Amino acid sequence: MIYFDNGATTWPKPPSVRQSVLEAMEHYGANPGRAGHEMSIATAVMVTQTRERAAQLFDLPQPEQVIFTQNCTHGLNIAIQGLLRPGDHVIISDLEHNSVLRPVYRLAKEGTISFDIAVTVPGDPDATVEAFARCIRPCTRLMVCTHGSNVFGFVQPVRQLAGLAREKGILFLVDAAQTAGLLEIPMTKWGIDYLCTAGHKGLYGPSGTGLLLVNNEQLPRPLMVGGTGSLSAKGEQPDFLPDALESGTVNTAGIIGLGAGLAFLQEKGLESIRHREMTLVHRLWRGLESLPGVELYGDAPQLPVVSFTVRGQASEETAAGLDQRGAAVRAGLHCAPLAHNKMGTMERGTVRASLGAFNTADEVDAFCRDVASLLP
Amino acid sequence: MIYFDNGATTWPKPPSVRQSVLEAMEHYGANPGRAGHEMSIATAVMVTQTRERAAQLFDLPQPEQVIFTQNCTHGLNIAIQGLLRPGDHVIISDLEHNSVLRPVYRLAKEGTISFDIAVTVPGDPDATVEAFARCIRPCTRLMVCTHGSNVFGFVQPVRQLAGLAREKGILFLVDAAQTAGLLEIPMTKWGIDYLCTAGHKGLYGPSGTGLLLVNNEQLPRPLMVGGTGSLSAKGEQPDFLPDALESGTVNTAGIIGLGAGLAFLQEKGLESIRHREMTLVHRLWRGLESLPGVELYGDAPQLPVVSFTVRGQASEETAAGLDQRGAAVRAGLHCAPLAHNKMGTMERGTVRASLGAFNTADEVDAFCRDVASLLP
Repeated sequence: MIYFDNGATTWPKPPSVRQSVLEAMEHYGANPGRAGHEMSIATAVMVTQTRERAAQLFDLPQPEQVIFTQNCTHGLNIAIQGLLRPGDHVIISDLEHNSVLRPVYRLAKEGTISFDIAVTVPGDPDATVEAFARCIRPCTRLMVCTHGSNVFGFVQPVRQLAGLAREKGILFLVDAAQTAGLLEIPMTKWGIDYLCTAGHKGLYGPSGTGLLLVNNEQLPRPLMVGGTGSLSAKGEQPDFLPDALESGTVNTAGIIGLGAGLAFLQEKGLESIRHREMTLVHRLWRGLESLPGVELYGDAPQLPVVSFTVRGQASEETAAGLDQRGAAVRAGLHCAPLAHNKMGTMERGTVRASLGAFNTADEVDAFCRDVASLLP
Repeated sequence: MIYFDNGATTWPKPPSVRQSVLEAMEHYGANPGRAGHEMSIATAVMVTQTRERAAQLFDLPQPEQVIFTQNCTHGLNIAIQGLLRPGDHVIISDLEHNSVLRPVYRLAKEGTISFDIAVTVPGDPDATVEAFARCIRPCTRLMVCTHGSNVFGFVQPVRQLAGLAREKGILFLVDAAQTAGLLEIPMTKWGIDYLCTAGHKGLYGPSGTGLLLVNNEQLPRPLMVGGTGSLSAKGEQPDFLPDALESGTVNTAGIIGLGAGLAFLQEKGLESIRHREMTLVHRLWRGLESLPGVELYGDAPQLPVVSFTVRGQASEETAAGLDQRGAAVRAGLHCAPLAHNKMGTMERGTVRASLGAFNTADEVDAFCRDVASLLP
């Protein structure tokens, strides 16, 4: 199988990740932070190690700023629902995933907040920042921007947007689901207040893991409250991190596996992974570009993601043909209707080929031949 | 190690569970319900299999009524926050875990709802039901009751409480964190509307899994909204199950492991597991009862859980001594302050020994000797 669906979930995972999950189930099977016995403490140490590695990767001073979530959507919901108050205004980009759009849309529909959509300009960071700036109102409390479009791979100028937000006294939340592990995101250096990402994509952890990184003293109101293993006598949720935002037993084996994924990244280096994948995606782009009847979106790949369609075919039809040939991609809207509206692909959707650290040039070439064989 | 902390997380897991998690990472590593390629579909089939097994275990007609959550706390928060509306009244028992108390307490503190605490009577189900009945007001919308106290193992008459709730037109939510997999809970037969449990306790799945079972047409307002892989063009969350309440990528390997845990239960049979554990816990009770200076709570074990203290020792001190002798238990308040208030153990907490399917009589005897060696 040629697995080009890494934008959904990276596969395979590094052997060290699979090994860590298995070891976690054998040796770190207790509940961390709930008891004082040896295995509980050993489990807590392993969970903390992942926290420390994540803090290091994203330039956060304290591991407690790393909150483990179920997935990226969970983190985004904590941040968006927990930061916004009645009367607030929020600005999102026109590339946001439904995990940003739906929470914002629901709050707006209920009359709690208002929002505007900044029209990004692919390839022109200044114009994108300007688009956000034009949407700012006196009651704007939060700006949310995806770092990289999950459909088209357009990279957004989050560093400059963080500067704008800071200058205007607005909180800034980044959805890094498609970029974490590929692009450096030094949150403190860049002044990013909150960042959410999945554990199971570019960080090479198992599914069921996500991160919410908090780099501002304003803590979101917890989405869930409950058992934290701390201040158990109190009916109130603890107000300190990470407990305030982590209720109930965490995904220990998943988090320990995520720690191995982060170690894999540290060892390889983001730049080397990025260089390898970008080389492959340019090869893929050129290969697809040379095929008559294949339409590509954007000017050139900005992430290891290519969205394309084949003339006269629904995206699902193309994906099904590729599946028959042993190539795994995703078709349709990719939970990102705004991005498709922007690019005029709402009706047919696109076929998305997304690469990972284990793809090869041979796979890229074979994939292009597979696409060629589907042409009318 | 003698692992008597199964009330927090069962350990070890059946070999089939560990094997399933590993296989999931190797062969079912794609995103279920997001793409049409072979591995995505194979992953979705495995996830659905777990849904079907859970529906069968809890007597639910449709697998879609099974919602995968991060943990039991997550499910309880969806149900409690999502069902209660401004002005509602809710009744909880005096044995609830902080995962019920804290969400209720927060809503009440914010002035959204009001609540009463029904005083349960251990060993007298009718009196417990009567206590709930006395708390009912015209605006009572929800009753919440733990099926088994996580500290003292007291089992609550959830079947009768479901009858009372149905009779009065009140919704009924059960926290089965400590009983799922041990006691049969036929939700449809008994008329239970909602039930939450952890996947990593008596269901023998990995941590990072939980279930919210919905057996009433009134769906809770989703706690999180976002990508569901369905109706992607819409800003609104889908209103059908399970998508309405499941946003973002699920914990695929964990859920597949949970499926193996459920298969383990089906194969062994709940009655056989319960019989074995109850035999052991009675042996443990008798062993501890014979030791001077050991205080037990309750009249006799109702679940494979014993809470005790040693005269003159803080519970943490006893647990630390046991840990040095290689026995893992949990000490303190166990995130359940109401239960400790009730039993007069708020100050010292209790030592909780909780058994699982893999404990043995030899371990019970060795544990009692360990406790004896700690006596003053």
